[in-house]
Amino acid sequence: MNNRRWLIAANPLGRALQASDFRFDEGEAPAPGPGAFLVRVSMLSFDPALKSYMENIAGYAAATEIGGVMLGEGAGEVVASNHPEFPVGARVKGAFGWQEYAVSNGAGVARIAEAVRDEAALGVLGVTGKTAYCGLVEAGRPKPGDVLVVSGAAGATGSIVGQIGKIAGCRVIGIAGGGEKCKRLVDEFGFDAAIDYKNEKARKRLRELAPGGVDVFFDNVGGEILNDVLARLAHGARVVICGAISRYNFDPRDPAQMPEGPRNYFNLVHAHATMQGFILHHYERFHQIAEARLSSWLEQGRLKPAVDVLDGLEAAPQALMRLFTGGNFGKQLVRIRA
Amino acid sequence: MNNRRWLIAANPLGRALQASDFRFDEGEAPAPGPGAFLVRVSMLSFDPALKSYMENIAGYAAATEIGGVMLGEGAGEVVASNHPEFPVGARVKGAFGWQEYAVSNGAGVARIAEAVRDEAALGVLGVTGKTAYCGLVEAGRPKPGDVLVVSGAAGATGSIVGQIGKIAGCRVIGIAGGGEKCKRLVDEFGFDAAIDYKNEKARKRLRELAPGGVDVFFDNVGGEILNDVLARLAHGARVVICGAISRYNFDPRDPAQMPEGPRNYFNLVHAHATMQGFILHHYERFHQIAEARLSSWLEQGRLKPAVDVLDGLEAAPQALMRLFTGGNFGKQLVRIRA
Repeated sequence: MNNRRWLIAANPLGRALQASDFRFDEGEAPAPGPGAFLVRVSMLSFDPALKSYMENIAGYAAATEIGGVMLGEGAGEVVASNHPEFPVGARVKGAFGWQEYAVSNGAGVARIAEAVRDEAALGVLGVTGKTAYCGLVEAGRPKPGDVLVVSGAAGATGSIVGQIGKIAGCRVIGIAGGGEKCKRLVDEFGFDAAIDYKNEKARKRLRELAPGGVDVFFDNVGGEILNDVLARLAHGARVVICGAISRYNFDPRDPAQMPEGPRNYFNLVHAHATMQGFILHHYERFHQIAEARLSSWLEQGRLKPAVDVLDGLEAAPQALMRLFTGGNFGKQLVRIRA
Repeated sequence: MNNRRWLIAANPLGRALQASDFRFDEGEAPAPGPGAFLVRVSMLSFDPALKSYMENIAGYAAATEIGGVMLGEGAGEVVASNHPEFPVGARVKGAFGWQEYAVSNGAGVARIAEAVRDEAALGVLGVTGKTAYCGLVEAGRPKPGDVLVVSGAAGATGSIVGQIGKIAGCRVIGIAGGGEKCKRLVDEFGFDAAIDYKNEKARKRLRELAPGGVDVFFDNVGGEILNDVLARLAHGARVVICGAISRYNFDPRDPAQMPEGPRNYFNLVHAHATMQGFILHHYERFHQIAEARLSSWLEQGRLKPAVDVLDGLEAAPQALMRLFTGGNFGKQLVRIRA
């Protein structure tokens, strides 16, 4: 059985991703040994961390090698099995890599419930949704009436954070790149306002939109946006550092490449505010409740997942690169089998 | 009655303090009206915030004016009184300014207990000690076995923070400027180790002294020291931003003057760490317990106040300027009357 896949062709440390970092390849689909099963992958999920995996520096995942199958989460169906918990026909999600077929022993693999589509399993009910829930609710601790600002608001996590903020009774301001994204955040996703950082002065707009300051800032971006929001903190503000898309293209081991830090960090003192680093796996005890609540909000129509789906395995490198140029709106996925 | 005093002669915003920012003056001592009392000041207390007061930008205190008496806390004795709670002979501390005699209505003034010397009243049992206690204990939440790093360790606050860290069962590493200061921290004040940032590479020394990382960092300095410690955070670390002596000589309203922020802030994510701004008055509910504990540790000899006393009111500008050049060891005071 033929297995089309993408291999890592180069380590992109210290620079932007490029097409030549990936090599398309065809091989024989592996056969599952004792206790293992074979998954036919139907959809791939994309996240900026995938670039870090290729760089072998993040400490998030096992080391990768040039020539190895590109890492990544996906959803699919079990098509051959020697594992009682994952019988043929079961729908599953896990770190199957960028390929049509993957063998697994079940470690880190979860069943997908019948009613749940791949898009939701990989997005709002997956790592993305849990990051949004745990990061906002448990780290950001929003109170009703708070002003919540989300950067990368049109991204996978940001678009959910903003919607959970509305459920929590906050006034929600998104920061995104481009007027079209901002319009959609307000019109389709219920944000109270959105700032187009590419065409507006974020700090000035924050002053207008949140004259009393920002109570919770959920940051996916870093750089000047973080600095701008730090200038506008309300008393007792909570800043959650979830990501820093602006920092993905340098080598953190090389001080000369290192971008500047937030010059306004000392406003944490004036505002008696807290800045907290967030990684999902430190909030494991909340994962179950996060999934249950996200699920119920989804059913009630209070949460609207934003998904951005490209078609065909060939599109995978492009899908990943879009995350760093802001090409996507919402969760970036690639459908590799209808 | 003659009243010698220092007036504000210039606003030092955006630059270092200089002698010409102060003007020595003599006038008539004021007379206390109904409900007021006259204090003969015996000792002045110095703090970097005094420069901010002169700049009228910190939002900590009332606006000052060129030609006004220089602000500052002091200790003294009531020598004339129309206030029943502050009779003649009472020892008091309060914001009396840089002058020999001050009139007060009692607002913000506290009695000094008989057994307590001026040095302790203004230092370890005053704002300095409370800042150290509340900042370390309530914001930093040290656990026994933690590695605590304190910058500005030979300063008024830092020298107490380190000693409270020892009481809390921490391994305490001070960062200070100069070998002599470092030696005193270890030999006289019980620090486990001290890093001389002027002559040693702080990051390398931290790696050697704290191979498992830094659990609590109490920062009085900012700049490269903050950045170096952020590179060495242990999992779950707490960073308390108390001061930033490295940032006192620029105008925060002028982005061009603004020093860089901590480039390593994103390590908060990798370490799942928290960075919190600290201002004492937000911890008012802990002031009483702080003073009681500091008092008892002092009596038991577990806490040794470091004081640096200059003699004569004339020395006041010099005393303040020393804080910004690292000239002092411990709490900077000026004795203006024996």
